[in-house]
Amino acid sequence: MKIGIIGAGQLGQMLGFAAAELGHKCYYLDPSESPPASVIGPVIQAPFDDRVALAVLADKCDVLTYEFENVPVEALVDIADLVPVYPPLTALKNSQDRLSEKQLFQRLGIPLPEYRVIESAEDLAAAAESLGLPMVVKTRRMGYDGKGQCVVREAAETETAWAELGSNKLIAEEWVPFDFEVSAIGVRNINGDFAAYCLTQNEHAGGILQQSRAPVADRGLTEQAVSYMRRMLDHLDYVGVLALELFVVGDSLLANEFAPRVHNSGHWTIEGAETSQFANHILAITDASPGPTTSRDHAGMLNLIGEIPAAARELQGAHLHDYGKTPRPGRKLGHITVVGASPSERDRLLTAIGDCVT
Amino acid sequence: MKIGIIGAGQLGQMLGFAAAELGHKCYYLDPSESPPASVIGPVIQAPFDDRVALAVLADKCDVLTYEFENVPVEALVDIADLVPVYPPLTALKNSQDRLSEKQLFQRLGIPLPEYRVIESAEDLAAAAESLGLPMVVKTRRMGYDGKGQCVVREAAETETAWAELGSNKLIAEEWVPFDFEVSAIGVRNINGDFAAYCLTQNEHAGGILQQSRAPVADRGLTEQAVSYMRRMLDHLDYVGVLALELFVVGDSLLANEFAPRVHNSGHWTIEGAETSQFANHILAITDASPGPTTSRDHAGMLNLIGEIPAAARELQGAHLHDYGKTPRPGRKLGHITVVGASPSERDRLLTAIGDCVT
Repeated sequence: MKIGIIGAGQLGQMLGFAAAELGHKCYYLDPSESPPASVIGPVIQAPFDDRVALAVLADKCDVLTYEFENVPVEALVDIADLVPVYPPLTALKNSQDRLSEKQLFQRLGIPLPEYRVIESAEDLAAAAESLGLPMVVKTRRMGYDGKGQCVVREAAETETAWAELGSNKLIAEEWVPFDFEVSAIGVRNINGDFAAYCLTQNEHAGGILQQSRAPVADRGLTEQAVSYMRRMLDHLDYVGVLALELFVVGDSLLANEFAPRVHNSGHWTIEGAETSQFANHILAITDASPGPTTSRDHAGMLNLIGEIPAAARELQGAHLHDYGKTPRPGRKLGHITVVGASPSERDRLLTAIGDCVT
Repeated sequence: MKIGIIGAGQLGQMLGFAAAELGHKCYYLDPSESPPASVIGPVIQAPFDDRVALAVLADKCDVLTYEFENVPVEALVDIADLVPVYPPLTALKNSQDRLSEKQLFQRLGIPLPEYRVIESAEDLAAAAESLGLPMVVKTRRMGYDGKGQCVVREAAETETAWAELGSNKLIAEEWVPFDFEVSAIGVRNINGDFAAYCLTQNEHAGGILQQSRAPVADRGLTEQAVSYMRRMLDHLDYVGVLALELFVVGDSLLANEFAPRVHNSGHWTIEGAETSQFANHILAITDASPGPTTSRDHAGMLNLIGEIPAAARELQGAHLHDYGKTPRPGRKLGHITVVGASPSERDRLLTAIGDCVT
């Protein structure tokens, strides 16, 4: 099949590799010059909301998908009449606004942190009062990698937060003293066949994912996550891979946010699961059965941010993925995956590699 | 790095995917229109011995390699002065002539079937006498997938065999009543770092590989194979992946032939080993450390020959690889890999899939 992908970054690239192995051909839409996915398929170089470019892509392809959730829904609505667009636009729309996202969690009975809708400096002050401090203020739209959010630790900081973010629609969230963060990744195809990966533990720094480890061997948490995932996928009549980020507090999970796409925290599935999240997304949107999501031993993933040190190519027992991007501070340029026979072996490998490459 | 690959078939394609994941870029030389690897890199469309095209490829690339062993050595000799060519040309040359190949095995103390050099109908009759019947007559050069060979079962057939093949340089081999066929796949990099995969059991039909299963859990055979592999790689000062096909007779191995390249019997390593043979070939020729060759559970591979039935896309628990080729009888169009928790689980999956797709 011919698959159109909106966005030709590393996620689009890895989707393209998975698609090519399955005999499909990917075409991309991306405004950048020589984006990562250009190694695997032709790129129409245009803005994401360029309706002519989108129509050209739709006309060329049997199915469309996207690699990031900030693609304008309005631009896709007309296209969706011409060619199937997966994941469905309702999922995309819900993921673009933190308020809709939280309302979706609430509707489905998925626990989440307390929050308030903020429309004024007064709302913010009131939220500080009712949620308590610290609290987290976030723009409702276009946030990623920790951008568009700040932590308010004392009452006086509400003014700074308002000054910084107040020109956007905002929400405020209670500060959750979580034990750690996990993500759940699931897949559902056109027939409703469902599969889920084991839980992945994530470590962020500066709002950017640094490391992931899987599986999280906690049956109770896993059952909760699979149940939440299934509710979301079925409710949205979802097709493709979805990633749900959650906070672990004791033996419970609180939903933080979801992404209607393959996710950085699932990169370990290339080496660490029987079918990668990329292959499963392609299988789902091409009307095939999902592949087994069984994890293999204990996987760890480390993002390479800003540069790929020469040492990364000399590592024993590690799998380097180099997206072929021009280095720039703070930019995700690649990642390294390790697979260990035990959690401690995996952690030893991750630490050794961390020492080499950072 | 920029990697030039002579041949853009499915092996070149899978090498290209592995290279792209590592941030390398592949360029190909191939005479066909839209060959499988054209999805992952530009193809210079020219005959394999086109010296201008080879020079263009060499000029564009940091290192050259090849996906099949019938590329003319003479055409590569000049190029090898301009850019490193791996695996080394001595290995390529030895693999192209069954006599040199057998002499290499003999020189390294690797056991092999008895054979005779055939230069006349009389030699053939004498060979039938001394080797006994049945015996196998093979052209010394350009044989693949069972082409260029025939079995002589009775004395009268030596004449037919001579009539059919006598215009070529020939050898005759004793018929080995082997228990089964295996292949050993090893890798060695520029520094001499060495790694080997577990033994793979292969089933051929009509001279074409149909199925592979790994690992072959026999320690004695594995140790012999690793020792033979190591002798070959070190002797040839080899860089890249090498496949050695062997006959199992009781608790011994007899070398049949080798290929200085990634091999169909190693396709299972994509899902069934921690690092695929394709990634390891690329790592070796780009001066990186080989990745772990540890196998995962029990893998089985089934070639899709002549057509890819629609059922192949609906299989549960299987990994389809579709090379994107135009279907043609006898042509390898793709393969399916399964990974089972036990040999019997793997065999059950293979049989079920075999029933669906053949």
